[in-house]
Amino acid sequence: MDTFFYPRSIAVVGASKTNLGYSVLMNLVNGFQGGIYPVNRNHGEIEGVPCFSTLEAIPYPVDLAIIIVPAASIPAVLEACARKGIQSVIIESAGFAETGADGLALQDQCVAIAKGAGIRIWGPNCMGVVDILRKHFFTFMHPAIRAEGLLPGRISLIVQSGMMSAIFLVELAHRGIGVAKACSIGNRADVDECDVLEYLLADPDTEVIALYSESILRGRLFAQMAQSSTKPIVLLKGGSSEAGAQAAKSHTYSLSGNSRLLNSVLELSGVTVADEIYQMMDLANALATIPHIDPACRTAIVTLSGGAGVLACDALERHGIPVAQLSEQTKKTLSELFPVWMPVANPIDLFPTVGLHGRDVAFGRAISAVLEDSNVDVLLIHVVVGLGEDIEDLAALKKKADQLGKMVLFWLMGRQEAGERFRQRARTLGIPVHADISRAAECLRAVSKFMVHKTIATADGAASTPPSASVSKKPPLPSREKIWDEFDSKQFLASWAIPVVEERLVDSLDEAWRTAQAMGLPVVVKGLMPGEVHKTEHGLVQLGITDKFLLEAAFHHIQEKLDHRGKILIQKQVQSEYELIAGFIRDNQCGPCVMFGLGGILAELEPDVAFAMAPLYREGALKLIKRIRSRRLLQGFRGMPPLDGEAMADILVNLGTVGVAYQQIEQIDINPLAISTGAPVAVDATVMLKD
Amino acid sequence: MDTFFYPRSIAVVGASKTNLGYSVLMNLVNGFQGGIYPVNRNHGEIEGVPCFSTLEAIPYPVDLAIIIVPAASIPAVLEACARKGIQSVIIESAGFAETGADGLALQDQCVAIAKGAGIRIWGPNCMGVVDILRKHFFTFMHPAIRAEGLLPGRISLIVQSGMMSAIFLVELAHRGIGVAKACSIGNRADVDECDVLEYLLADPDTEVIALYSESILRGRLFAQMAQSSTKPIVLLKGGSSEAGAQAAKSHTYSLSGNSRLLNSVLELSGVTVADEIYQMMDLANALATIPHIDPACRTAIVTLSGGAGVLACDALERHGIPVAQLSEQTKKTLSELFPVWMPVANPIDLFPTVGLHGRDVAFGRAISAVLEDSNVDVLLIHVVVGLGEDIEDLAALKKKADQLGKMVLFWLMGRQEAGERFRQRARTLGIPVHADISRAAECLRAVSKFMVHKTIATADGAASTPPSASVSKKPPLPSREKIWDEFDSKQFLASWAIPVVEERLVDSLDEAWRTAQAMGLPVVVKGLMPGEVHKTEHGLVQLGITDKFLLEAAFHHIQEKLDHRGKILIQKQVQSEYELIAGFIRDNQCGPCVMFGLGGILAELEPDVAFAMAPLYREGALKLIKRIRSRRLLQGFRGMPPLDGEAMADILVNLGTVGVAYQQIEQIDINPLAISTGAPVAVDATVMLKD
Repeated sequence: MDTFFYPRSIAVVGASKTNLGYSVLMNLVNGFQGGIYPVNRNHGEIEGVPCFSTLEAIPYPVDLAIIIVPAASIPAVLEACARKGIQSVIIESAGFAETGADGLALQDQCVAIAKGAGIRIWGPNCMGVVDILRKHFFTFMHPAIRAEGLLPGRISLIVQSGMMSAIFLVELAHRGIGVAKACSIGNRADVDECDVLEYLLADPDTEVIALYSESILRGRLFAQMAQSSTKPIVLLKGGSSEAGAQAAKSHTYSLSGNSRLLNSVLELSGVTVADEIYQMMDLANALATIPHIDPACRTAIVTLSGGAGVLACDALERHGIPVAQLSEQTKKTLSELFPVWMPVANPIDLFPTVGLHGRDVAFGRAISAVLEDSNVDVLLIHVVVGLGEDIEDLAALKKKADQLGKMVLFWLMGRQEAGERFRQRARTLGIPVHADISRAAECLRAVSKFMVHKTIATADGAASTPPSASVSKKPPLPSREKIWDEFDSKQFLASWAIPVVEERLVDSLDEAWRTAQAMGLPVVVKGLMPGEVHKTEHGLVQLGITDKFLLEAAFHHIQEKLDHRGKILIQKQVQSEYELIAGFIRDNQCGPCVMFGLGGILAELEPDVAFAMAPLYREGALKLIKRIRSRRLLQGFRGMPPLDGEAMADILVNLGTVGVAYQQIEQIDINPLAISTGAPVAVDATVMLKD
Repeated sequence: MDTFFYPRSIAVVGASKTNLGYSVLMNLVNGFQGGIYPVNRNHGEIEGVPCFSTLEAIPYPVDLAIIIVPAASIPAVLEACARKGIQSVIIESAGFAETGADGLALQDQCVAIAKGAGIRIWGPNCMGVVDILRKHFFTFMHPAIRAEGLLPGRISLIVQSGMMSAIFLVELAHRGIGVAKACSIGNRADVDECDVLEYLLADPDTEVIALYSESILRGRLFAQMAQSSTKPIVLLKGGSSEAGAQAAKSHTYSLSGNSRLLNSVLELSGVTVADEIYQMMDLANALATIPHIDPACRTAIVTLSGGAGVLACDALERHGIPVAQLSEQTKKTLSELFPVWMPVANPIDLFPTVGLHGRDVAFGRAISAVLEDSNVDVLLIHVVVGLGEDIEDLAALKKKADQLGKMVLFWLMGRQEAGERFRQRARTLGIPVHADISRAAECLRAVSKFMVHKTIATADGAASTPPSASVSKKPPLPSREKIWDEFDSKQFLASWAIPVVEERLVDSLDEAWRTAQAMGLPVVVKGLMPGEVHKTEHGLVQLGITDKFLLEAAFHHIQEKLDHRGKILIQKQVQSEYELIAGFIRDNQCGPCVMFGLGGILAELEPDVAFAMAPLYREGALKLIKRIRSRRLLQGFRGMPPLDGEAMADILVNLGTVGVAYQQIEQIDINPLAISTGAPVAVDATVMLKD
């Protein structure tokens, strides 16, 4: 991979005096310090750079070839590359898989040639590689983009879509955010996001990786790399909506896959997931500038506008960032600044103190007190610049914050020019400045989450506890049906130490009544039909059987519905506080995964599920349990007993182990997993095998 | 009120050569065309404007006085105003209610003097009045703010907080959004947001009203005005979070009140509620430029970047805006532009057509086809400017869109200068331009909702159907207890035609068993204790009583818990698909209101309720039912019977009627309101009276 970024010499196949071939060459001439060898049989030179009629005519060694000739001629070019001994090729031309079956065949042909010759292909249909620090522009990117003032920085980009790559560079420049490398990977015929991620994780210039992608080819590997990464990764995933996924399909000819699962798995692996372009940029920038603060991110707000203080609280609370409770010491210091009638509280509205002490004294003393407060991790200062004196000594402020291990950031308003000056000073010092308080709160949230991830990623041994159920003692699967009925499914899960409801198949009404009495009333009567998973909708479930009369009615009703084709099940009716769901799924991007979520009809309306890759260790299972939106429900909400987290974690670990142990298993659904005085028990379940 | 905006002459009490008194005078001199009379006994003139030693020394009639002297001296100034016959006074000085009890007393004294003399007070503690169209700056606002290039426009502002008023003007100017009037109302000792709203609704210069407020003093009147308004109103409500409400309390010394209720009532009245400053500005701007389009807002997307198309779909779907299904005719036209391998779909990615037809032809023909498509209401064009030719003929595009009754807007990216030029051209033509696609989608959502509101606000008779239960036949209240038990509460509600569960009070176990048999098993046994609303937590509810043995156990258990102090209730156990809640509440801002929402434990975790003012008419009740997030649940979700909307509306109408009829009623809670085969029935209820 190194050759794609730091070649000693580059051949440009398709260099020309106009169009993209000209842009590629000029982008090299204006920055690249190594050998530049344009290949063009019609010109002796272009802008003073001598041309060669073929690759093989170049009398020097060539590390990298950039190809920008029509697609149809590229197989021949690759063969020439092989003869010349070139190991790395960036194909920037379009006309491959994205145009349909013929293009895909052409692309496959190129990959085959390259593979045979040990050549790695970057692209095709991409904008290539940019390294701002070294002024490497291995791309046909419009020269106007460089004129927008690209800033060197610590964020590297991986971008699937070519246009987006250019857009990101321009928009980051406008926001004053610096970039290390930008990698437009196009059709990913060979080099894909995992290759580039692996490279950037080891790249000393890169501190944060931001990614735009409509699908991730090797989601599992990607998540595994993220899991152990101490560099923040921010993902903007296109195609997360139904309409968007449809559009992504016709844009990149690759299925977006299960976005909910992928995002959930990646978030659990420490990836920050963004919804939109600027949000992604701001999150990446925030993650590039964070000091080592407490993940609690208890935030103090200093302002001269009471209204801004109110709105800041609203935004922080909306994003789950706690408004700090000031210590008694801080309150005492502040009360000496404030007029007597003014209560001391966070947000700290300094407006009434300015008249008493002057702006500098008021700000200086308040900020010092707050930074020294051990109840405060983050100091958010709201300023309106250009309408009087502004805070001048940002360097001292930043130094003090760093010394105390605190984060300081600004919510900036005011006059345009003064604002720009302020922003530039803050940028030089690495102080984040936000125009939008909601975005500031989102960034703090991302910082907080990443601080937690980093602690885990850094600690050894977190992933070393083996799953409780061992895979070595694996009996053969009890059924070869594609869809197992709930009895078979639960018997199987029970053999893997997953608690299931008490139930028994019965042949006669007499046996049914004896069973019901033995279990204790009320019971449920269910009819099991091969392949039928929608029992309730088909009248095959009778709840609340409390006496012999009701049992008889239910038994006959279901017997009639079954029409001699199925089995009758008597099941103890579980009184539950609420219902969860759990399961196993084999995903095309992430491989075997465990699912955990809220059950019941409302959860169908607004799904609340989280996923993690299997096999799952106890720590991972406990983390997964905490990922759902409704996690408060599990903690002993409204006087209910709390969920038995250990038992729940065991179930999730075992589901993962089972799924990994049996390659034939496609999916396992436990729905509902009833929670009865805090203990989980599988009431209904389905095991599905591959075709 | 007219005098506050268009006085013929103004006296400035406290005009001076420095500080705020100087700013007020200079803001008048630089714009106001009427008489300007500074009152200052120490100077003969200020900047050439002759001063008067007292108000009464002014030999001309004075319409408006602006007061900027220390608070303590203001009662005397108001008495002088009275003697001079001045009817309108803006007090910009601080030092009143916001400083505590003494300040509040001073403020009350001023109000009393003014009332006695028929003077209206604006403020105190405010930035006053600005009218950009007429260059009226009746304010001490920093002159630098005018230098930021304030644009005349059609949005008027009402701002409670003084600083926010200045911030809004500056930030709107930076975003190129024009303003008509800006009204900073401060402590609202007399003139409040309702007075100003009423005035602006009738103001021909104002087309949209944007409001920042931490509380609304007369919420009910405000909502009523909004209800019948055909001008959009956008509200940024500070203090919607717990921490924010706390901060608002110490900022404006007024309770934020029940933000959820207020926001809900206002949204139902057609108000657009914003969460943050820039969002409020963008929403107001979007609502100021909308043509009369179909509220469906079916949106077509035209772009040169497949990735942008994908992200646009994601954002639209996230905000509930449908991605349009193109007509066959449009598809045919587009397929003639596209290469054969390219499927025609929305988003319309024109990238592959540019090479075939040139950019102008591709864009021109695609845009025409889409605008003419009757399945399309909105055309969203994504452009990246400054990297080649840009769309030049915006005027023709806008004209065509207007002729066809369609809305066109841009998602703009690209180089900074080219972007600014594009934005200015679009602004002149009234075409919205967004940098952020999520915000664009939010704006479309607001436009869509407002179009629906406007249709209703414009139609007569919507509010003319009388509530079904008439208030004339009002019997006396059956109890004077502060908190009624559930039996009394439901008996009362049943007398108002609200369906309640079958239940009976019993004295003995024998009677309990006879009652249970008559009702049909299973039943519920409840113990009612005076004033006890947490029956379940206190073991006073026994569910699922299916036989005599269980009944006996439950009866004795509850009898013991009650210890001779309460009553025992036998209730039929209702099998329900799901649970709702409904109620009545008397709010301090909005008065009598009806509440509707989702029940059950999950709704306690993530509340999903909506409110409307009582009395409620059938149409209002039907609208209220549709306001909850989980409304899909009510429509016959997953094979369940749909909610009987008529029966539900009756309950809500009747709750409102009861609450309005009996002034003593403070609150009514029906929780749960069980939905059994689609029909609502009150299972538990509590009526609460005022102290």
